[in-house]
Amino acid sequence: MKAAVFFTLQEVDGAGLQDQTAVVIDVLRASSTIVAALAAGAQAIYPVVSTEEAIKLATSLGREDALLAGERRGLKVEGFDLGNSPREFTPEAVGGKRVVMSTTNGTRALVAVSGAERVLVASFLNLAAVAAACADSERLAVVCAGREGRFSIDDAVCAGMLLSRLKESLGDALEVDDAGRAALALAESLVPDEELLADAAAGRALAEIDMLDDVSWCVRVDVEELVPELKERIIKRADGGGA
Amino acid sequence: MKAAVFFTLQEVDGAGLQDQTAVVIDVLRASSTIVAALAAGAQAIYPVVSTEEAIKLATSLGREDALLAGERRGLKVEGFDLGNSPREFTPEAVGGKRVVMSTTNGTRALVAVSGAERVLVASFLNLAAVAAACADSERLAVVCAGREGRFSIDDAVCAGMLLSRLKESLGDALEVDDAGRAALALAESLVPDEELLADAAAGRALAEIDMLDDVSWCVRVDVEELVPELKERIIKRADGGGA
Repeated sequence: MKAAVFFTLQEVDGAGLQDQTAVVIDVLRASSTIVAALAAGAQAIYPVVSTEEAIKLATSLGREDALLAGERRGLKVEGFDLGNSPREFTPEAVGGKRVVMSTTNGTRALVAVSGAERVLVASFLNLAAVAAACADSERLAVVCAGREGRFSIDDAVCAGMLLSRLKESLGDALEVDDAGRAALALAESLVPDEELLADAAAGRALAEIDMLDDVSWCVRVDVEELVPELKERIIKRADGGGA
Repeated sequence: MKAAVFFTLQEVDGAGLQDQTAVVIDVLRASSTIVAALAAGAQAIYPVVSTEEAIKLATSLGREDALLAGERRGLKVEGFDLGNSPREFTPEAVGGKRVVMSTTNGTRALVAVSGAERVLVASFLNLAAVAAACADSERLAVVCAGREGRFSIDDAVCAGMLLSRLKESLGDALEVDDAGRAALALAESLVPDEELLADAAAGRALAEIDMLDDVSWCVRVDVEELVPELKERIIKRADGGGA
């Protein structure tokens, strides 16, 4: 397997992912929230970039079983049913529902890689499941959502841990690029704990809006077995299972 | 000191460096070559983005004491006096001369940070000198040239080593962003040796054009005391010394 890591979305521009499996990572919080939503029994997630687009899509899906979720500056968009905190995505809130979601960085990342052959969503929560799901890909693009165009250490460490899992199973058959090598080194030297995440730019922004509990939620490793997959603009469980 | 690291030039866009000291790093090879040129007694370096601009500027400076230097795909531009190999920049070749230089990534980086209050050029060769020169800056932007818009591990490790030197002298007074924290971790876990650089994308590209000796040259740490500084589009020794 040839694996490349993209620490920011700008690097993905023109990278030509047509024949690749892309794994999107936005630890704080979109990819963690997508995992939480599907784990709680949401039928499907519809990622869109703008809030206007979200409202339009939710209306066309039928407001009785489509929820609006998303944040701007970390806070729930006014009039939306849910924000972007994974703790909100309980079975009571989202079980059996379709969720139209718009976040600042995560949904942009999903749009940026939409040309890839296959698009999976990873977080610390479902790392082993994603590693298993992409282990047979010949070319892998691990795409970190980053934060407003800048490098995010939480996403980078998660990317490195994913590559580390793949290295365990593939050994020397795993070839990485410069960024992949750096991500592996980061995953070896930094422990993905609450301190690391709380001190990251994304963690500090959550602390400011009193949402540091999300960090404790998102830092848990391998607690969900599911793999969210984006197909034709809709994210479902890769195994086809739903609620 | 608040220090930020930019692993790619796209991240610098709109970062607003007006009140900052920017340090530009392109280990393989532009920043190493700039250090080599000034160490060999070149009067000044004029970085420009296009080869056309280079020819025009060299002509207006007077072709008798202005040299044309630069590469495309690693190779010397046709008709230019020098390529981008630091080994070419000997006292015989560049002593007392003005050098108009155009390279693929390095000169773009210099242009990208030209709005900064102060612009210095760092490589492994002059790391201690640059660390000393920027130790009193309140805000520091360490800008890696990268490689065609992608992360370069050689530049990232060099950035981390620069921060590590600053941490030694500043202690807790050094605050770093997510990328700075990652760069520090990389500098702690990866040794900047010939193997690391030869295996980097930039090193492999040099091997393909039979220029791997440049890697051995550029990997030497703290062998030059000088600090190149960009002022009004011209790079000279920060101490004002020339040949």
